[in-house]
Amino acid sequence: MAAQRRQLHLGAFLQGVGHHLAAWRHPQVEPRNALRFEHFKQLAITAERGKFDAIFFADSLGVPDGPPELLARGLLPSYLEPLTKLAAIAGVTERIGLIATVSTTYLPPFHLARKFASLDQLSNGRTGWNLVTSGTDWEAQNFNLESQIPHAERYRYAREYVDVVKGLWDGWGDDALRFDKQGGIVFDPAKLHRLNHHGERFRVRGPLVAERPVQCYPVIVQAGSSEDGQALAAATAEVVFTAQQTLEEARRFYSGLKGQLAQHGRSADSLKIMPGVLPIIGQSEQEAQKKYEQLQQLIDPVLGLGLLNAFLGKIDLSQYPLDGPVPEFPVTQGWQSRQQLFVDLARRENLTLRQLYQRVSGARGHRIVVGTAASVADQLEDWFVNEAADGFNILPPTLPHGLDEFVAGVIPELQRRGLFRTEYTGSTLRQHLGLARPRNQFE
Amino acid sequence: MAAQRRQLHLGAFLQGVGHHLAAWRHPQVEPRNALRFEHFKQLAITAERGKFDAIFFADSLGVPDGPPELLARGLLPSYLEPLTKLAAIAGVTERIGLIATVSTTYLPPFHLARKFASLDQLSNGRTGWNLVTSGTDWEAQNFNLESQIPHAERYRYAREYVDVVKGLWDGWGDDALRFDKQGGIVFDPAKLHRLNHHGERFRVRGPLVAERPVQCYPVIVQAGSSEDGQALAAATAEVVFTAQQTLEEARRFYSGLKGQLAQHGRSADSLKIMPGVLPIIGQSEQEAQKKYEQLQQLIDPVLGLGLLNAFLGKIDLSQYPLDGPVPEFPVTQGWQSRQQLFVDLARRENLTLRQLYQRVSGARGHRIVVGTAASVADQLEDWFVNEAADGFNILPPTLPHGLDEFVAGVIPELQRRGLFRTEYTGSTLRQHLGLARPRNQFE
Repeated sequence: MAAQRRQLHLGAFLQGVGHHLAAWRHPQVEPRNALRFEHFKQLAITAERGKFDAIFFADSLGVPDGPPELLARGLLPSYLEPLTKLAAIAGVTERIGLIATVSTTYLPPFHLARKFASLDQLSNGRTGWNLVTSGTDWEAQNFNLESQIPHAERYRYAREYVDVVKGLWDGWGDDALRFDKQGGIVFDPAKLHRLNHHGERFRVRGPLVAERPVQCYPVIVQAGSSEDGQALAAATAEVVFTAQQTLEEARRFYSGLKGQLAQHGRSADSLKIMPGVLPIIGQSEQEAQKKYEQLQQLIDPVLGLGLLNAFLGKIDLSQYPLDGPVPEFPVTQGWQSRQQLFVDLARRENLTLRQLYQRVSGARGHRIVVGTAASVADQLEDWFVNEAADGFNILPPTLPHGLDEFVAGVIPELQRRGLFRTEYTGSTLRQHLGLARPRNQFE
Repeated sequence: MAAQRRQLHLGAFLQGVGHHLAAWRHPQVEPRNALRFEHFKQLAITAERGKFDAIFFADSLGVPDGPPELLARGLLPSYLEPLTKLAAIAGVTERIGLIATVSTTYLPPFHLARKFASLDQLSNGRTGWNLVTSGTDWEAQNFNLESQIPHAERYRYAREYVDVVKGLWDGWGDDALRFDKQGGIVFDPAKLHRLNHHGERFRVRGPLVAERPVQCYPVIVQAGSSEDGQALAAATAEVVFTAQQTLEEARRFYSGLKGQLAQHGRSADSLKIMPGVLPIIGQSEQEAQKKYEQLQQLIDPVLGLGLLNAFLGKIDLSQYPLDGPVPEFPVTQGWQSRQQLFVDLARRENLTLRQLYQRVSGARGHRIVVGTAASVADQLEDWFVNEAADGFNILPPTLPHGLDEFVAGVIPELQRRGLFRTEYTGSTLRQHLGLARPRNQFE
């Protein structure tokens, strides 16, 4: 057989009724779907038909700050808790990977390890955990704190958290369970491994009451692209979702992060980098452009500015003229990499404040590609073959339509070019992604 | 129409491959089913066919203390995390209630409120939360503690926890969501209620990102029968699972707990008391007795004593002669009501240590009824009509067989007597149980 050509990986980032800030106002979109399981179930089935590696749910832990009148204009993220939603979807899908975001800052690691171990079991090895650290005071205030833990500290704790969670997933040897009825032995006592972790932040005895997960470790995903985030990813992540605007930036990020792997004894192939892409697909370039403009025109200016403000933290943007230049703003303890991306974008393209929030409202800092299915495939291929990406996290602007169009148009185009699978060859998410099953650290 | 006759409520307590300690060794039982989603899915479908009010999953947070060689003989509780398992089952059932155990001691209340709100949404209002406080040091040691929080303190915190969780479930008014595309308004800002809870143990700002749950509050269930437990139940619970051995004890418990409701402004009908029952069903009394003895003979003596020891806490029972009297032991900070039940049982029936662990191994302190379907129905009816129970939590000794037999034999018998529904009349768990939908405290 000929050597397998390198193929790209695709995630379907399923956010409510679409990623575009104004998606819910689009005439074709039913906004109440954001609350309905049936909607997400159908999206998962569509993505599985498209042979996506995984579906992906983001998360945030609460309702942002701000006057209710502003919040009421649309600043509401996901309604259904991601792990609960994924568990329900696990029962109605067969092959597609299931990635949920869970923050390390407010959930004891024992709970996280156990939930993913159960979900990995239920789904026959299809889970991934998107590790975030939560970057806002309004989330901290739902968990006994006045304000968030500083950025560097959160990431240090996250590193310890991953150690604990892996130690719990290794708490049982493979084939520990025997169920020897005659001898009265349920499991091999030599294959039970107490963790006895005593670290800076966590003390956890272990083990879980569980078999070792089907994948040993659910796939570890990260999206933090700050310096702290990259250091954590180089040490622990197997997939990185990232927001990159230009090929040059993306290539720099890709080689920079891959370059950090060797110091952890890891191969370049053990981490897949998947920038976010919001595709707007038309039968012609002109139709695609028109669809994009239609969505852009639905953006509520108050909300657009509010969203930008939410990313940038404590600065009050409403004091600056909308058609003047983007002001200087300080780096906060919040989402540092995204803040830097917005500054760079505004300076590079010389954007006004209005132009910046309009860009951000489309894909929240992710790359937007507009065109025919072939042209969108070209733009994905361009980054893939130029060492800027191992694949892409696809952010449909509206749902279900944006996903339907991608599966109907772009996927077959990528398949014709030999860039994407025509059928699943494995059964676990690790197999879809070409990632090894980790060894048990205790054996 | 004639007035509706009072009918009893039934829960199906689905524990691994059966409640009997030796269930996994039974020749008919496939022990690996305890790890398989398909097994629980089929059990849920069977229980729904039997028109049970709900299925119920217990929980514990870790692997008990003890030498691995003893643990290996079978002291392993549930393998799959209950909420994850229930979410997956929600997608494949339609009417039956879904009750999961979650401890208040180690999970931030924001997470609990959110998970149940999501599950209530996914399941169209079928969820119930069995509140426990966790009573062992080995659970505490998985959550940054050396030993558990004292009993009274745990229950005081649990009371505050319930307040927080209800406040979060009330964070949105009914019909808060508008989705007015023209006006650009997602929700009515007057219907967003920040909680701003500042209590002894918790500080939580709220609200959730969620609609109000379909049932407003998922049904609140409790199983703690100690004095602290009863006080908490009288204030907050809507269903109480309890272990009672004799009609007289059960009547005393029933009237005692119902009698505490008035001081909280609650009617006797607002709390359903459902003792646990382990039924052993045969075509004849003799066959039933034989089935019971077959299971009892499969009990591993080392394990039986170990289980009793696990309930009783730090005392080492192995120093006492097995065929001598049950020794005195001190009340611990653990599971106080169950400890008392074992003392009473041993004294009343003059049991040796061996006889006590044999009784406990069958149903862990719950009532065991042995007989034909008609005789089992008689024994349930007896407690139901004599104000000892509003219904029962059924603990099948082996699974799936014990549940299959109950649905095939006892349910039709109860239906013929008019004691149990022949079809669901409502769609939510509250409706099945005849419980009112709570008002929003902020409106």
